[in-house]
Amino acid sequence: MVNIVDVRKYRGFIFDLDGVLWRGDETVAGAPQTVNRLRELGGRLAFVTNNASKHRTKCLDKLKSAGVKATLEEVISSGSATAQYLKEKHGEGRVHVMGTDDLKREMVEAGHEVVETEADYVVVGFDKGFNYEKLDKAYRTLAEHNGLFVACNGNRLFVEEDGRHPGVLPSVEALACASGRRPDVFVGKPNAPIMEMTLELLGLSPGECLIVGDTLDMDIQWGLNCGVDTLFVLSGMDSLNTVKATGIKPTYVLSSVSEIPLP
Amino acid sequence: MVNIVDVRKYRGFIFDLDGVLWRGDETVAGAPQTVNRLRELGGRLAFVTNNASKHRTKCLDKLKSAGVKATLEEVISSGSATAQYLKEKHGEGRVHVMGTDDLKREMVEAGHEVVETEADYVVVGFDKGFNYEKLDKAYRTLAEHNGLFVACNGNRLFVEEDGRHPGVLPSVEALACASGRRPDVFVGKPNAPIMEMTLELLGLSPGECLIVGDTLDMDIQWGLNCGVDTLFVLSGMDSLNTVKATGIKPTYVLSSVSEIPLP
Repeated sequence: MVNIVDVRKYRGFIFDLDGVLWRGDETVAGAPQTVNRLRELGGRLAFVTNNASKHRTKCLDKLKSAGVKATLEEVISSGSATAQYLKEKHGEGRVHVMGTDDLKREMVEAGHEVVETEADYVVVGFDKGFNYEKLDKAYRTLAEHNGLFVACNGNRLFVEEDGRHPGVLPSVEALACASGRRPDVFVGKPNAPIMEMTLELLGLSPGECLIVGDTLDMDIQWGLNCGVDTLFVLSGMDSLNTVKATGIKPTYVLSSVSEIPLP
Repeated sequence: MVNIVDVRKYRGFIFDLDGVLWRGDETVAGAPQTVNRLRELGGRLAFVTNNASKHRTKCLDKLKSAGVKATLEEVISSGSATAQYLKEKHGEGRVHVMGTDDLKREMVEAGHEVVETEADYVVVGFDKGFNYEKLDKAYRTLAEHNGLFVACNGNRLFVEEDGRHPGVLPSVEALACASGRRPDVFVGKPNAPIMEMTLELLGLSPGECLIVGDTLDMDIQWGLNCGVDTLFVLSGMDSLNTVKATGIKPTYVLSSVSEIPLP
């Protein structure tokens, strides 16, 4: 774990968003300039979030507001990655979504058909509108058609300014309990499927990329799981104490993205 | 497993409701008469349901409509049993309810105070109104105050005319996942706490009672767990095939409550 990053070693940079480029509504000072400069130097960029409740256009808008140059293709959510993963591994299909309308839109845009019953895939994404009726429908769809059970990610909790809140995993566990089945796949960070989608977008191999993230159990663990170097920035959720507590070791550590030394 | 029941062996009769005294809105023919006759012969009666979403008065109304004589005290739900169990084992306290308003009413009537935060007990009962906001509140209450985590019962699914639906266990599992804790106690059938409450009501010991139920994994298993003889009736969910499939063996089996031979 060192704090000297030689960016010339990497051709691709995979950024987490919240805690890295902004905190809530506040942009991390200097971060957009550094990101734009990495692009000018020839770096390929990806912006990867586990939030499957919002369509990627909303991340893109926020990137643009913060002054980060980006295209929709460079933005990957665990929702869009799930849509893409299913398409590539299993083909376009009939999807039942236990999640938001934005997640349904990701499915449709990737070529799937969103259905209520007889689904090939039952996809679970974070949704503040999760309720018994949605659980009941997803359970019945799984029970009746025995489709693939797909979790956009396995986040147990997430942090907002007022504290921690349940993530998507509790609703995944509710469906797992009702159906008597475990999910067939978790797509999002820190799992391999979303890395496959990201590397495909970048056209690079794991050894050519650097993950920049603020969470050890998610971003840094993702790098460890997938053989990608990691830069842990202290502008977000976790501190150096968390490194000691978890034993999850990043390749590099810096106070923020703006500290990345640029040629 | 025999089909000759000598009712003179028992002083107390513990009836499940749906599938035993009625099926949905249809009364099982002859069942009310048999129940009333058992009372006339000196039997003590209890009517025990795992449904914690409705106040016991609603069960009592249905019993009366069906022609069964009963008092409110004789009706025990996993909700009222939970309220009573907490009072007796841990004292009247501050209860956060992840469940229906009827369940809250059971808590208040047993002497507890229903609160949103700083709860001594977090009680989970079946609720078709279960949603993310309720999960979030229960999670935060558990996380902030570390109270007792109490499940009214552990029913994974329940059956209605149109098929199976998720019971309370999926929402218990959602809260367990978010909080990183297992429930401290499951009160309802087939667990011991609701039997303790039932025997206390009857003023009898396990060996003096007979459970009459239609579900093997719930009613009959309850008897096996608690040392109470069981009469399995075929007027409800399970058939004799289920006995073979599950290996759960009742003491007696009859086609319906009305077949109980009376002196």
